[in-house]
Amino acid sequence: MNYPMIFNNIGKILLVEAALLVFPAIGAVVYDENTLLSFALTIAALTVTGLMCMKKKAKKTSIYAKEGYVIVALSWILMSLFGAMPFFFSGCIPSFIDAFFETVSGFTTTGSTILTNVETLPKSLLFWRSFTHWIGGMGILVFVIAVMPKTESSSMHVMRAEVPGPTVGKLVSKLRASARILYGIYCVLTLVQIILLFAGGMPLFDSIVTSFATAGTGGFAILSNSIEGYNSIYSEMVIAVFMLIFGVNFNLYYMILIKQGKQAIKSEELRYYLGIVAASVVIIAISLITTKHGVADSFRYSFFQVASIITTTGFSTTNFDTWPMIAKFVLVFLMVIGACAGSTGGGIKISRLIILVKSGLRDIKKAINPRSIETVKVDRHSVDESVVKSVSVFFSTYIIIAAISMFVIAIDGRDFTTTSTAVIACIGNIGPGLGAVGPYGNFAGFSALSKLILCFDMLAGRLELIPMLMIFSPYAWSRKYS
Amino acid sequence: MNYPMIFNNIGKILLVEAALLVFPAIGAVVYDENTLLSFALTIAALTVTGLMCMKKKAKKTSIYAKEGYVIVALSWILMSLFGAMPFFFSGCIPSFIDAFFETVSGFTTTGSTILTNVETLPKSLLFWRSFTHWIGGMGILVFVIAVMPKTESSSMHVMRAEVPGPTVGKLVSKLRASARILYGIYCVLTLVQIILLFAGGMPLFDSIVTSFATAGTGGFAILSNSIEGYNSIYSEMVIAVFMLIFGVNFNLYYMILIKQGKQAIKSEELRYYLGIVAASVVIIAISLITTKHGVADSFRYSFFQVASIITTTGFSTTNFDTWPMIAKFVLVFLMVIGACAGSTGGGIKISRLIILVKSGLRDIKKAINPRSIETVKVDRHSVDESVVKSVSVFFSTYIIIAAISMFVIAIDGRDFTTTSTAVIACIGNIGPGLGAVGPYGNFAGFSALSKLILCFDMLAGRLELIPMLMIFSPYAWSRKYS
Repeated sequence: MNYPMIFNNIGKILLVEAALLVFPAIGAVVYDENTLLSFALTIAALTVTGLMCMKKKAKKTSIYAKEGYVIVALSWILMSLFGAMPFFFSGCIPSFIDAFFETVSGFTTTGSTILTNVETLPKSLLFWRSFTHWIGGMGILVFVIAVMPKTESSSMHVMRAEVPGPTVGKLVSKLRASARILYGIYCVLTLVQIILLFAGGMPLFDSIVTSFATAGTGGFAILSNSIEGYNSIYSEMVIAVFMLIFGVNFNLYYMILIKQGKQAIKSEELRYYLGIVAASVVIIAISLITTKHGVADSFRYSFFQVASIITTTGFSTTNFDTWPMIAKFVLVFLMVIGACAGSTGGGIKISRLIILVKSGLRDIKKAINPRSIETVKVDRHSVDESVVKSVSVFFSTYIIIAAISMFVIAIDGRDFTTTSTAVIACIGNIGPGLGAVGPYGNFAGFSALSKLILCFDMLAGRLELIPMLMIFSPYAWSRKYS
Repeated sequence: MNYPMIFNNIGKILLVEAALLVFPAIGAVVYDENTLLSFALTIAALTVTGLMCMKKKAKKTSIYAKEGYVIVALSWILMSLFGAMPFFFSGCIPSFIDAFFETVSGFTTTGSTILTNVETLPKSLLFWRSFTHWIGGMGILVFVIAVMPKTESSSMHVMRAEVPGPTVGKLVSKLRASARILYGIYCVLTLVQIILLFAGGMPLFDSIVTSFATAGTGGFAILSNSIEGYNSIYSEMVIAVFMLIFGVNFNLYYMILIKQGKQAIKSEELRYYLGIVAASVVIIAISLITTKHGVADSFRYSFFQVASIITTTGFSTTNFDTWPMIAKFVLVFLMVIGACAGSTGGGIKISRLIILVKSGLRDIKKAINPRSIETVKVDRHSVDESVVKSVSVFFSTYIIIAAISMFVIAIDGRDFTTTSTAVIACIGNIGPGLGAVGPYGNFAGFSALSKLILCFDMLAGRLELIPMLMIFSPYAWSRKYS
């Protein structure tokens, strides 16, 4: 393994994180908060470590698949360790494991919180907390590719490891240009949301942090009762629509930009995505109309919650843990399914689900007629058999990791619903689950071991399993394979 | 599709069921119960239908894959419809859907019951109820192959559809001889258990029906509080050991018979099976020692329950729904995992789990070193890639069917634990779940729709998905593919 090269790349990322921390540090000055020292210390620690990592120049700079995964996994863990420091140094989160959990939850755009009273946090820390969502949503390595000069074509391996979905396509032939286009779309959409929220009467600070959390499909809110606290139908609808927008494959926006909008609308994944959203909204609304609310309120709550959960954002406008069981089950399914590939959302992704279901149907056809030769088709193109297999293995691995995690967390002795949905919410990067981790609850009550397991799940979910599994595998570190 | 041939085969099976119903009918005479008429009517209905099915002789008798699956799926549904009649005609189960549920649960060796007070059932019906477990355990079509003359080699397709596991191997070159050997081992083991239980002081009738339910790894007990009611450590240990015995691949017993015992012990699946059992017993016992019982009792309850759940039998000696959460999670995992391939147990099967985990690890290795060529090995032999893929697809399909079922059953509005474990318990052919369907509960409270969905799950689980999915697929009935 090319360690100098790996360190060089990690060093770059730590320096970028140091630069990004300047924003909340400025916030600390503007709002005259006593968190400035904590940010300064963290920036110093990042700069020193970053420079040390870059000291020994690598002779070869090309990145192979294995190194790409290792860089991505280690960067995300280190980013979270350093990113936790401002919370810890300032004393706002006295336990470092809790601060780490909160930061992992931020970067992975999960949005699960250990804070019992988020309103007491200084604004600069609230800003940093929501900013981690925005950084993690599109991926810090993609950012590095976009802004750093001299990006090699071999960075593709890094991008593949960080961008969600079963396959990764470059938008344009140059990787760096692709990364810039993605971040450009991301910035513009975020800005539009900030303006719309602010225009609707939301305070500027709230508009910014809420838009960060929406863009990354993260879900950290700065009120304990999430978006419900604003009690504004206008804001709810803006946020809901933008959650759905950020849950779409960004390649489609690029296609619209280059005037291939017609082709974008034909995307099978987009159609299934919107279809699942529509069906879920109707089912949940009906269940609410028959039990709790009037027609208008039922659709209002249902639309917001479906958008929030399928995009794995995790905002809430009501305590859906008290909803009828059928509504809760729909939400749990949406948690597992997740958003579109190539979006900022988590979960298994709709394109994987399409491939899974189609390959299942194909296998049945094949059982009926063993001589038939059928390929799985998405968007009228045949999906390569290796992709079909890797999707099946991905799904199995996903379920097995979730099962083992539930098993370890069950040691805490909490109820079945809390235990199982906490894991689903973390590995799917959603945020709230049901029971004690429902929208009105939080993750504070878990043991340190459980919190670490959930951190692993959040990272594994965000980086789509392989990178996180790999760095815990002896093969990755064995000389035999280097 | 060769309909006359399909009808001929189904006809045979219905006649065999008529013959098997003579045993409980004799019981009705012996115990002088008023159920004789119900049995007689059912036998008459089966005989008439069976003969009608066999009236039009098929010109071609060879069975292709598709026909094999259709025969198996339709036979199991018809067997259950007719098998439910004695319960319904006698008035002991007034709702036909309930009677159907109970019979499907019997044949599929699930052991979930809708009876709230099983002790009130006449002995002849109790006998039939447990006998369905014994018949379903090894499979009625395997029985037909064993006893009927003129079995073609093409019956392999039938055996493949009915015998659990990712691959099916003929024990000897003749299929009929293989089926006879399997049934021979099955009968002898059942007989030994009956003798051991009877010798330990259990009444003869109880010994017989309990052994039927153990052999099929079904789990219907004739006391509402299952095996706890006998309060005999000796009986518990005999039953626990025999549950484990019936959870082993029967091919291994054949190997011992032909003096290849050494090779049988080396079986990787057997070793994982025993390892998982030992680890689970210890984990649960520790959790019980620290919370509820003394050391001896903790191991007693833990050993029995682990044996009962991993083999998907579902007997209980205590209300494990009140156990610590970690113990309950271990049990839920065992429910999903299930017993060995080629046993009478349900679940996903240990050999599939081995292939899944190994192919997951292989994919990680491949991500690390894309040039590596590694095959998945079980028992030192490479597993064919098509088997690896079909196992992944099987697992995904299993989870998706479970998810959709939970979704529909959630309409009933019961709690999360009950809803989710009811489906897991049915598709895994276990019997009891947690919550309202725990060992002291039953399935009576579900709606008719939910019961039908659970019946589908039980059949899909027992026949390992493909046959049941197939008969609900338009492809199977399309002339295009016939």
